[in-house]
Amino acid sequence: MDRFMQAAFEEARHGLEEGGIPIGSVLVHRGVILGRGHNRRVQLGSAVLHGEMDALDNAGRHPAETYRESILYTTLSPCPMCSGAILLYGIPKIVVGENRTFLGEEALLRERGVEVEVLQEPECIAMMEGFIASSPELWHEDIGE
Amino acid sequence: MDRFMQAAFEEARHGLEEGGIPIGSVLVHRGVILGRGHNRRVQLGSAVLHGEMDALDNAGRHPAETYRESILYTTLSPCPMCSGAILLYGIPKIVVGENRTFLGEEALLRERGVEVEVLQEPECIAMMEGFIASSPELWHEDIGE
Repeated sequence: MDRFMQAAFEEARHGLEEGGIPIGSVLVHRGVILGRGHNRRVQLGSAVLHGEMDALDNAGRHPAETYRESILYTTLSPCPMCSGAILLYGIPKIVVGENRTFLGEEALLRERGVEVEVLQEPECIAMMEGFIASSPELWHEDIGE
Repeated sequence: MDRFMQAAFEEARHGLEEGGIPIGSVLVHRGVILGRGHNRRVQLGSAVLHGEMDALDNAGRHPAETYRESILYTTLSPCPMCSGAILLYGIPKIVVGENRTFLGEEALLRERGVEVEVLQEPECIAMMEGFIASSPELWHEDIGE
């Protein structure tokens, strides 16, 4: 697995170990990880800390130029909220672990000029399939369904 | 001013008093405020806690049905990230204090079926105009420009 997707996957696994939703993300600027994070709905009772949001938050404050030279890696296709954050900050490229278990706003992102690369990593798919099968209510809450 | 917009405006004013960006929001479910919040970029060094996100986060975890009977009040037109959160949770209506100083993703929200009411409140406009004039760099950072 690509080393940045591996880092996002490790975040997802940390989340699962904490009893949370296994989605992880890293924000990478010119080959350096600026922030890493994972979904913390369960851990913090948060409605906004999806994996991508947690990575962006943990990266801290940056000027627009930094985001515009960055790539966001996420184990799962980004939902509308996380896609909106990608658009807000003008992140030009995202790398997605998989979109088989959930298809987010990839079409909107592409329409707005974001490059979206989907890896369909078997380990990402297996982790989400296992989680959704074991915790369907929690999963539906996380995606507003 | 409508009492819920007044509550959002008070949140914005708290933010300004704290040295932050004066944008506030409340999430209202069947006439009861579930969560209130304001932009906390400065206060917490957060890249994700815009006013609307802070209100959603402070409201805590809720099932989809609750969001689908809720209205989000925000002093300023919602950016792509906050608009994405509105779409994620299927919030059917938002009330916006003003969109003169910043126009967010109102068109996308309407296209996806969200009712968007814009009040053009003079107090909301004046607060943002004053803030943008005094802190243009901070404002640009907050909207990824």
